[in-house]
Amino acid sequence: MTPGAAPAHRGIEPLGHEVPSTVPTHWYNLAADLPEPVPPHLHPGTREPLTPADLAPLFPMGLIEQEVTTERYVEIPATVREIYSSWRPSPLVRAHRLERAIGTRARVYYKYEGVSPVGSHKPNTAVAQAYYNAVEGITRLTTETGAGQWGASLSMACALLGLTCEVWQVRASYDAKPYRRYQMETYGSVCHPSPSDLTEAGRAILERTPDTTGSLGMAISEAVEAAAKDPAAHYSLGSVLNHVMLHQSVIGQEVLVQLAEAGEKQADVVFGCAGGGSNLAGLTFPLIGQNLREGTTTRAVACEPAACPSLTQGEYRYDHGDVAGLTPLLKMHTLGNDFVPPSIHAGGLRYHGMAPMVSHVVELGLMDAVAVDQDEAFVGGVEFARAEGIIPAPESTHAVAAAIAHARTAAEGEVVVIGLSGNGVLDLPAYSAYV
Amino acid sequence: MTPGAAPAHRGIEPLGHEVPSTVPTHWYNLAADLPEPVPPHLHPGTREPLTPADLAPLFPMGLIEQEVTTERYVEIPATVREIYSSWRPSPLVRAHRLERAIGTRARVYYKYEGVSPVGSHKPNTAVAQAYYNAVEGITRLTTETGAGQWGASLSMACALLGLTCEVWQVRASYDAKPYRRYQMETYGSVCHPSPSDLTEAGRAILERTPDTTGSLGMAISEAVEAAAKDPAAHYSLGSVLNHVMLHQSVIGQEVLVQLAEAGEKQADVVFGCAGGGSNLAGLTFPLIGQNLREGTTTRAVACEPAACPSLTQGEYRYDHGDVAGLTPLLKMHTLGNDFVPPSIHAGGLRYHGMAPMVSHVVELGLMDAVAVDQDEAFVGGVEFARAEGIIPAPESTHAVAAAIAHARTAAEGEVVVIGLSGNGVLDLPAYSAYV
Repeated sequence: MTPGAAPAHRGIEPLGHEVPSTVPTHWYNLAADLPEPVPPHLHPGTREPLTPADLAPLFPMGLIEQEVTTERYVEIPATVREIYSSWRPSPLVRAHRLERAIGTRARVYYKYEGVSPVGSHKPNTAVAQAYYNAVEGITRLTTETGAGQWGASLSMACALLGLTCEVWQVRASYDAKPYRRYQMETYGSVCHPSPSDLTEAGRAILERTPDTTGSLGMAISEAVEAAAKDPAAHYSLGSVLNHVMLHQSVIGQEVLVQLAEAGEKQADVVFGCAGGGSNLAGLTFPLIGQNLREGTTTRAVACEPAACPSLTQGEYRYDHGDVAGLTPLLKMHTLGNDFVPPSIHAGGLRYHGMAPMVSHVVELGLMDAVAVDQDEAFVGGVEFARAEGIIPAPESTHAVAAAIAHARTAAEGEVVVIGLSGNGVLDLPAYSAYV
Repeated sequence: MTPGAAPAHRGIEPLGHEVPSTVPTHWYNLAADLPEPVPPHLHPGTREPLTPADLAPLFPMGLIEQEVTTERYVEIPATVREIYSSWRPSPLVRAHRLERAIGTRARVYYKYEGVSPVGSHKPNTAVAQAYYNAVEGITRLTTETGAGQWGASLSMACALLGLTCEVWQVRASYDAKPYRRYQMETYGSVCHPSPSDLTEAGRAILERTPDTTGSLGMAISEAVEAAAKDPAAHYSLGSVLNHVMLHQSVIGQEVLVQLAEAGEKQADVVFGCAGGGSNLAGLTFPLIGQNLREGTTTRAVACEPAACPSLTQGEYRYDHGDVAGLTPLLKMHTLGNDFVPPSIHAGGLRYHGMAPMVSHVVELGLMDAVAVDQDEAFVGGVEFARAEGIIPAPESTHAVAAAIAHARTAAEGEVVVIGLSGNGVLDLPAYSAYV
């Protein structure tokens, strides 16, 4: 029961119990339907496209294959689907009371990922990543986390699948939001503030900027370094990479089914918050794929924080995913890998870059992007909470606020979908400061 | 958007949208099926059975009628049912991975109320109570809260139904768990630590015991006094009273349907945590009613904290619900209305008495009771979290631990149901202290 102790059981094998047919059987891969291929990741030294061997020190082969596959559907392993079934499908709820409160003529729905055990969408990929590592014999995962949703999610997944987990958390969040650390520790993980003196990357950063509040880019450098030094360990990333977008596609696939069940022909517009891009991609890619294959006309809108506006203000170019330059070069919208965003409440949106698949989709004109001011986001969050009961995560409030602004002047009968990536229960001090 | 400001909309009228048939249409009242009637509440002055007029200063007539009704089913108002439908039915989940972890031969299920907007079962009655007050023209509710789940739930309900809400929170929890207060404030409520200098009852307690950490009994005195002084205000109680047991019956009614859907003939044993009794009653009364009407043999087990053991150590007699003696006399298992329990983590279980209906049912031999030590409860909570992903509320861990202990030696195929009254996301410091 001490932090870092391996759970007494391992849980890789499927239990073989029935899983409801409403839980997706496959992940959906937008790469199969795009008119132009996603630019490859490049080796940071050679600037040549990455080979599987380049990624093997950090990732299991199951995930490396998913990173480059162009198959439209990838089967979800039985064990992963069994675990999903304890909270999936997540609800798609008609926001009747919000509609009345704001006087919209639209029909507004929210897809609520806050019902997962850690209260966000992150376990959708955490469980998959822990699974593929466990089946290839890895016993320890390292990762970074911002607000802590990802670290908590991977910790949960590791507890369920018999792995140990070590998390580097951005110093600003580590200090301001200790509850997420307690959550990780309850699942048996160890959590360090980043930058730390446990890695070369961390020590170098601390020497240059001893008072830094940290960043996701720094924490990634530390977690990658720690994994690279341990043959029994791999590294796990909660967003940005293609395989993460793939795993999150359960969200949007469920939305398509649930909208049809509600009698809707299509979502006319869907709003998702955009940090690294995983919630956004999971929510919107299945709908964009339907546009490309079947001619539906769903408009997807990425809602990013004005304080960290990679899509609306960044350059579209190859850049590193981390500060130290240890990661591959990714073609993405970036504010520069040394960009340190202000300490906004939406810690999960404080990333200098954007997922290459999301960036590519925006470049192709298949998705729009807007920047939302933090105050405006909280106004939307409080309005939502007082009408629907759920207090949205600060990240999600960016989508909520943009959707409310849109819905106020929407056409009669327009179908609006809000991606509620998580609840704000562990972000209540931010609401308190705002209210 | 400031605390205490009335929401801009009122939401009493039903919206008229379709509600899934899986959301209960009626509340179930065990009083209709009991072999002996529940002893009446007595007037604190005359010791005569209470009349509706005695309760009218504090409660709306709709709830006063429910307090004494012996009808088996009470229709759920359309507005309440519409609000329920955004998170009900709550899931009944087979705990496959916990079963494997503990090696049980039983089939273990958990009924998870943590999917509600505030993460516990409390909104089931909060929404109903706010509704009946709102339709009778009340504009302000006062209440007490321990750990804060009830205060947050009533705050949410008041926000949705256009009421203002003022909460007295037990000082120990107010200081140790500020997140719940932030939650109340986000919904627009005002929260005071209790005892406070805002009421005569509070001032009297502070004079006698200036360093007290407070108790639910004290906070009730303050909230009752504040409501009694304002004709536009009523008081709202989150547990103990008969109408609260009634509203919570949605839990157990859903369990019956969900077990049948899972192919189970009956629950053989159901474990619920016991504080004031509302979660326990909601979970078990529909099953006990089925025993009485149809001859099923479900065993119901109340799981209370060893530190506040009203059912297993208290006297069964008439006692006040509060410290100051302002409330009616209730026939219940009580540790005495001046009992101040130790500051255990399960703040929601720190009440000196037990719901009269639960007490009566235990006296009739229709329910068992066990006391669970706090450490044992946390062992169960962590074991559950690392197998199933959900971190249970400290209150719920009492039921979890008792169920795990039972399941380890259960007979082949026994059906065990755990009432997971809420999640422990806002109680993570307690887990951290334990781990």
